[in-house]
Amino acid sequence: MIKDKTIHHFLDDLASKSATPGGGSAAAIMGAMGAALVSMVCNLTIGKKNYESVEPEMKEILAKSESLRAQLMDMVRSDVEVFNKVMAAYGLPKETDEQKSARSQQIQSALQEATDVPIECAKACAEVIRLSRIVAEKGNRNVVSDAGVAVVAGHAALKSAALNVYVNVGSIKDEKFVSSRLAQLNGILNGMDVLNEEIFQSVKDKL
Amino acid sequence: MIKDKTIHHFLDDLASKSATPGGGSAAAIMGAMGAALVSMVCNLTIGKKNYESVEPEMKEILAKSESLRAQLMDMVRSDVEVFNKVMAAYGLPKETDEQKSARSQQIQSALQEATDVPIECAKACAEVIRLSRIVAEKGNRNVVSDAGVAVVAGHAALKSAALNVYVNVGSIKDEKFVSSRLAQLNGILNGMDVLNEEIFQSVKDKL
Repeated sequence: MIKDKTIHHFLDDLASKSATPGGGSAAAIMGAMGAALVSMVCNLTIGKKNYESVEPEMKEILAKSESLRAQLMDMVRSDVEVFNKVMAAYGLPKETDEQKSARSQQIQSALQEATDVPIECAKACAEVIRLSRIVAEKGNRNVVSDAGVAVVAGHAALKSAALNVYVNVGSIKDEKFVSSRLAQLNGILNGMDVLNEEIFQSVKDKL
Repeated sequence: MIKDKTIHHFLDDLASKSATPGGGSAAAIMGAMGAALVSMVCNLTIGKKNYESVEPEMKEILAKSESLRAQLMDMVRSDVEVFNKVMAAYGLPKETDEQKSARSQQIQSALQEATDVPIECAKACAEVIRLSRIVAEKGNRNVVSDAGVAVVAGHAALKSAALNVYVNVGSIKDEKFVSSRLAQLNGILNGMDVLNEEIFQSVKDKL
């Protein structure tokens, strides 16, 4: 399991010529780092005298960010699993017409499944960005730069997840499926570049 | 050592109310992930028949990206070390005027030292972004999305490092030091948002 690897070992694997882990796992881990930083700001706000009024909200956000972190770490694993399914499908025999057709069906079905992971990752990262905004605004001012790193990490993970959707749909033949997934992704991405820039600027202004 | 922690354990520590690891370590790790993905694209390009003409260039880039990855992982450690120095200085006694003055000097000197780590991190990340562009353009087309994730990770790390510079200089009294470091940072940041966007678009167009 990637999550049980040391950071050093994971980065060695990422850099190697093995196809997994790759950009998909990197995206989910960056998103999980963003979620963890949101949690950190909450943890450093809860119980502090000057922040009593926001304590209930911080507790709610903490529960959400910790759930998102767990979901994103699950995606690190599922990204590798679905990628391996795609590779296995490409490796199927293609000598007879029957084999060719079965192989092609398997590839298409694996690619569709593989598209769902980055879509879910993008959704979770958009949520990390939204939570970052609240902790940057209302959380402990002493760690507002960490809230800023949270949004930047969440946004990088979102953009990476988008690339992982684009690369998969590029090989999918079912046009309806492709346009539905791209529409879903566009809905998630909508306004996120601007929001990221706004939160970054507001954090910078507080430093 | 953070690099020897499992990803799961590191994220638990990041999320906790302990002040380290925080945004500084997260920035350096994101930069190292970007560097590792550049290496991955190089490793999947070197030795491939269709890419013989770019093999010498890919080998050079690989050497650079692996060196940057090592530097960035060193920064994870030094970021925690300099942060601890700053905290130790804040913890010095401040009962007599002499103690107050000695404490203030220690704090200022530790803050200046702590500013150098994110500046070095930003420099390394800008280099990761430049290398990402080359591998996105000339590397193995099958992994161009990984080159795209490399640039996004490098850029997020760069922006995070910038926030870590801003937060430190905010408490530094030596105006010459502050303006010199901000000028240095601005030099590193200059053009990087546009470059990031350009590389992202060119990768997206290839998918």
